[in-house]
Amino acid sequence: MTQPWDGHKRRIEMQEVGTRDGLQSEAQFVATEDKIALVNALSQCGLARIEVTAFVSPLAIPALKDAEIVMNQITRHPGVIYSALVPNLIGAQRAIAARADELNMVMSATETHNLCNLRMTQTQSFNAVASVAAIAKDAGVALNLSLSCAFGCPMDGEVSAATVLDWCRRFMQTPGVSGISLCDTTGMAYPTQVHALTRAFLTHWPASALTLHFHNTRGMGLANILAAIDAGAYRFDASFGGIGGCPYAPGASGNVCTEEVVHALELMGFASGVDLKALLAVAHRLAELIGHDVPSQLVKAGQRLDLHPLPPGFEDIKARALSR
Amino acid sequence: MTQPWDGHKRRIEMQEVGTRDGLQSEAQFVATEDKIALVNALSQCGLARIEVTAFVSPLAIPALKDAEIVMNQITRHPGVIYSALVPNLIGAQRAIAARADELNMVMSATETHNLCNLRMTQTQSFNAVASVAAIAKDAGVALNLSLSCAFGCPMDGEVSAATVLDWCRRFMQTPGVSGISLCDTTGMAYPTQVHALTRAFLTHWPASALTLHFHNTRGMGLANILAAIDAGAYRFDASFGGIGGCPYAPGASGNVCTEEVVHALELMGFASGVDLKALLAVAHRLAELIGHDVPSQLVKAGQRLDLHPLPPGFEDIKARALSR
Repeated sequence: MTQPWDGHKRRIEMQEVGTRDGLQSEAQFVATEDKIALVNALSQCGLARIEVTAFVSPLAIPALKDAEIVMNQITRHPGVIYSALVPNLIGAQRAIAARADELNMVMSATETHNLCNLRMTQTQSFNAVASVAAIAKDAGVALNLSLSCAFGCPMDGEVSAATVLDWCRRFMQTPGVSGISLCDTTGMAYPTQVHALTRAFLTHWPASALTLHFHNTRGMGLANILAAIDAGAYRFDASFGGIGGCPYAPGASGNVCTEEVVHALELMGFASGVDLKALLAVAHRLAELIGHDVPSQLVKAGQRLDLHPLPPGFEDIKARALSR
Repeated sequence: MTQPWDGHKRRIEMQEVGTRDGLQSEAQFVATEDKIALVNALSQCGLARIEVTAFVSPLAIPALKDAEIVMNQITRHPGVIYSALVPNLIGAQRAIAARADELNMVMSATETHNLCNLRMTQTQSFNAVASVAAIAKDAGVALNLSLSCAFGCPMDGEVSAATVLDWCRRFMQTPGVSGISLCDTTGMAYPTQVHALTRAFLTHWPASALTLHFHNTRGMGLANILAAIDAGAYRFDASFGGIGGCPYAPGASGNVCTEEVVHALELMGFASGVDLKALLAVAHRLAELIGHDVPSQLVKAGQRLDLHPLPPGFEDIKARALSR
């Protein structure tokens, strides 16, 4: 019997969202050429997919006002899927014009969060899904649906599995929708819940249609990923450096950290295909670009077998001990 | 079949080590009366055990130079075990004189780390175990053995399970030793390894003899605890506020954070007996006492159902959306 503590070379797919979910909440604007360089460097790391940017109102998220330029000027690496977050039809049109491989359209599992985040009702958002699906299909671009607050809403509290599955059903019945991300937008998911919701999803739809998006806001990110893997999921969003804050928890950790997740999963025998050393090198550049330390523990501590030299005076300590 | 994602009301025992493992690495001296107040407050939180302090050389660890005063002046709460870390016979004598309920004697799984940390060879440390066990037995005080670097050494690298189990055997064969803590001193443990080593331990000795001590240095703390639980362990060290640095990873997280672990485990249906609200209140005091933010995500983000009010202007946003 497999169990979550032994990867048995099972394949895990990592989708990097740092240049979107991470940078969107940074106060310091990261220069367009630096963003392009980050995406190009991430493209060399063996990641399955990179969510490059978001096509949103530049007034709402000025940090990503250069979405078109970034999407157009990155160097596409064969085999990597370059996706973009879109909140509505206009965003989708912009993303398609900028040659995104995949659109990641977002709406919330609660009316309150949908209104706060997107300034639309859920009905308005869902109507937009059909329009976006139609133009995506015409353009030959894949469409993923991201359901925010799938594990709880910071204002409304619990979100039932029935509510989440009902949205999933409506998304999957829309022609042109290829997959769904269940998003723990504000770090409310916990492993039991993740395991149950993942299993419930997989009784209806295949694992190839499912991405899990966790934040480490309350320290449960990696445990949630392991619970989801145990239930049959294999594709996860994560953010290099662990950047990506939460407006409801100032100072708390952001998205689960790509290099931490890859480090842990590879030690456990899973196969992510990610070049951890290369990824860590990219994560090390982030602090300077955003003007503060990143949450990534691995950036601070290194990999577990990055050994330390003997301390100065070790031979003296040893000689004194042996002389007793 | 039970699985690690569903607690089924299983009992988990939390041992608080923040006033020892946490404070020992803080640059700012926490006043003796504040330490006493912290222990007294922690005593009200339903924790099974509190490692109050360490009886070590005040020159080596000035932060805990007030061990006797703290141990003597705390208010003992019925049902709570007050333990103290001791590195050698002198420390053990001091701790017994100060009326510790339990001694937690430390030595390392590698010669290099033992010399660096204790300035003794492993043979010298192990000889001291026998002497300490003898005086502990005479005093009617329990003796736990903490094996540092049980999951890896920052200088020597991998530590084999055979090495760890051999030390466990030698400890458990020493009359007066009641239990063992396998300590991931520098955050090198990973879930597969934890699961395997815990299972191996439990084929020889009962779960009542085992404590796991994890650091969150590389972000795997909670996952390691869940792996250990899945293998049959139920007692864990943790540090309120998540304090407790690592000299080999400046800026990285310290011990696994008590309130984060309790929050996660209680959501998953385990029974820790800890009053999370009371514990969080104590953790909130820490930042001021140590002069910097604590790693605890829960101190920043609150519990998952600590809800947020609707943002200002929400009714306008809603009205504008509905008018479209």
